[in-house]
Order: sequence, then structure tokens, then C-alpha cells
Amino acid sequence: MSFYDVLHRRRDTRGEFTGAPIPADVLRRVLAAAHAAPSVGLSQPWDFILVRDEHTRRAFRDHVLAERSVFAAELDAERATTFARIKVEGILEATLGVVVTYDPDRGAPAVLGRHAIADAGLYSVCLAIENLWLAATAEGLGVGWVSFYREDALRRLLDVPPAVRPVAWLCLGPVDALPDTPDLERHGWRNRLPLDDVLHEERYTRRPSR
Amino acid sequence: MSFYDVLHRRRDTRGEFTGAPIPADVLRRVLAAAHAAPSVGLSQPWDFILVRDEHTRRAFRDHVLAERSVFAAELDAERATTFARIKVEGILEATLGVVVTYDPDRGAPAVLGRHAIADAGLYSVCLAIENLWLAATAEGLGVGWVSFYREDALRRLLDVPPAVRPVAWLCLGPVDALPDTPDLERHGWRNRLPLDDVLHEERYTRRPSR
Repeated sequence: MSFYDVLHRRRDTRGEFTGAPIPADVLRRVLAAAHAAPSVGLSQPWDFILVRDEHTRRAFRDHVLAERSVFAAELDAERATTFARIKVEGILEATLGVVVTYDPDRGAPAVLGRHAIADAGLYSVCLAIENLWLAATAEGLGVGWVSFYREDALRRLLDVPPAVRPVAWLCLGPVDALPDTPDLERHGWRNRLPLDDVLHEERYTRRPSR
Repeated sequence: MSFYDVLHRRRDTRGEFTGAPIPADVLRRVLAAAHAAPSVGLSQPWDFILVRDEHTRRAFRDHVLAERSVFAAELDAERATTFARIKVEGILEATLGVVVTYDPDRGAPAVLGRHAIADAGLYSVCLAIENLWLAATAEGLGVGWVSFYREDALRRLLDVPPAVRPVAWLCLGPVDALPDTPDLERHGWRNRLPLDDVLHEERYTRRPSR
């Protein structure tokens, strides 16, 4: 696939995982892609925890379903009805989970480019996640970012030290299809904005937020 | 270029900008790539401010150079000598600046997937930045992320409202080359880590941070 094909075919995958194995060389290329991301001060402050164990995954899935209920309880009736149709995770159906964390001590204390913006290290971790996501797409795999969890719960589950911050649980694996339309748009949760709505020339122009 | 060629050729560019114009259709494809990134709850909480004005760019460059000195003053003698060789921005040499911001009110209040992790919206903005960076690479352009600035200074310079957070100033434009090796490695600031140093199986394994 060409670069733009990969970029525009990428989807957030939840219901399409087959659970089939990922060849070791494919998984390695996907992780190497993440590790090739830019990072502030070349700190590469990410770690990747590969979670296959079913007991661990079930425990995380139970936590995510509880957090799903927390969110559902905040919604008005119309939104709650729409939300009820939406699957928010494919933790058990995916081949594995890739948990991505941020270590602020990597390359510290003098991280070049971070003295004025403490979050710059966290930003680097997200760049690695997007690289992973696109490489998985290029390999015909699906990725689903699960964010219905409390960081401390995931920390405890995977022995992540207090100073290290979990940033994402990514469900990863072969899928039977990558939908053309994002799930949330297909289910009527929210539509994508036109590009021109988010472009500004020279200065920020205030517009009603949508 | 194939997907992996783009991904591994991408570099953080500072000294290689030519200042040549970017054709409008190329710039549009690069911005559309950023806008096609995944986002929590399909909130697309990013904005892109295209800054070409020389007066604005000079003011930002002056601020960045002052912050460069703040960082340099924190370093020991050996690190300071290494840092002195490193260029941290190409603000005036690049064709334009793309300032990327985060609007937490986009799609609020009930952003699907953000109730437990407030920073999830900020993460989405970073995914858009990596898409932009890779698309620029595919188009033969360079990108340099400048992070030697105070968010409030950039906010004031570009009329960004208090609730909206500047995430990056990206220098963008044609370059005369994309180096094979990251600048910071070439200048002896820091070396890239082996992938295996950041991989863990099932649980986080504590290792000395490097």
C-alpha cells in the first residue's frame, strides 16, 4: 500500500478482530515503527508491554466495562441510547494488547526541548503510538485504542512503577475488515469536521466550538 | 515512497530548510493527513494556524532563542559544549510555521473515551502531528518541531484563547536533504536505544533508565 492509502485506511478497530496469530516478523516491524518515532531530546521515553495472558486481559476488560458504565451514567437519554450501540473495546478478541507507557526519567534530568514544556515527553509517546497504528494498518492489522480505564488500575495490573505513566492500551491483531467510516460516525455519535473548520491563517480565529 | 520508507526517512529538520514555496495542493494533502488522525470520541480537537508573516516569526524566534539560553544555563560544562553545536529551530528558514493547538471544548462535554483520562484529547492532537510529519516526509518536505517556548508566550503572539493549548510549532517546507541520522545523535547529544530495551512481556520489568 502507498503511504496515503495506509494513512486514510487506518481505523480504530473494536468489533473486527479475528484473534488470529501475528507472525513474529510482522509484530517486530510494527514495534520498530513505533520505536522510530521522533522524541523530545531523542529521549525515546516509551515502553511497550505485550499482554497476551487471558487472566490479565479479562481483569482489564472487567475494569473497562465498569468505566463504560460510569460514562454511560453521565449521558442524557438520547446520547445514552446512541452510546449503547457502540463497542468501546476488543480486549479479548484481539490477538494481544500493547500497553504503551511514558517514563519521564528517560534521558533526564536535562531533556533537550522539555525544560519549558513538561508534557513534551508525553507528546513523544503519542507520536510512537501513531507510528505503531499506521504500521499495523500497512500490515493489514487492526488497532483499537482503549481509554475507558483509570491509570492507577492499569498501573497496578501490570506492575508499572508510580513514576511511569500508562498512556494507552492498544488492542492489536488481524481483522476481518477495516470499515470505511469510523464507528462513532456510523453509529451517529459524531460526524467528522471539514478540514477548513480547523484551519487558521497567521492568527487564531475564534469560532463556535463544534 | 512506500509506507515504511516514509516512516524511517522522517527526520526532525532544523538546518536543511530552503524556504522554497510549497504548492497549494501539497500543503492541503499534508494538512488533510493531519486531520485524518484518530481522535478520542471523534472529537478532532486540533487546530492548525499557518504562520507565514515574518514579523510574527521573528518575534517567536527571539523568544525561542531566549529559552534556548535558559536551558543552556542548566547544563554542566560538557553538556553545554555539546548543546552549543545543536540548532534547535529553523523558524525563519522554513517556508512557514504550522502551530498546532488543542481545544478541550471540541465535542464536549461528553467526549466518549475521555471521562477517565483528561489528557486523552491532548494525545489525539499529537497523533495528528505525527500524521502531518509523515505526510510531509512523503511529499519530500521537512518538519522541525520547536519546543523551546512558553505556552503563554505563543498564546499571546497568535491570539490563542486561554482555554486552548498550544501543542507545537512545526517548521515546514522543502529541504535540501533529510539526514540519515538524527541531529542529536550526530552531534553526540544522545544515541538511539535498541528496541529490546523498551519491550516488556505481560508485565512491566524494571530496568535502569537510560
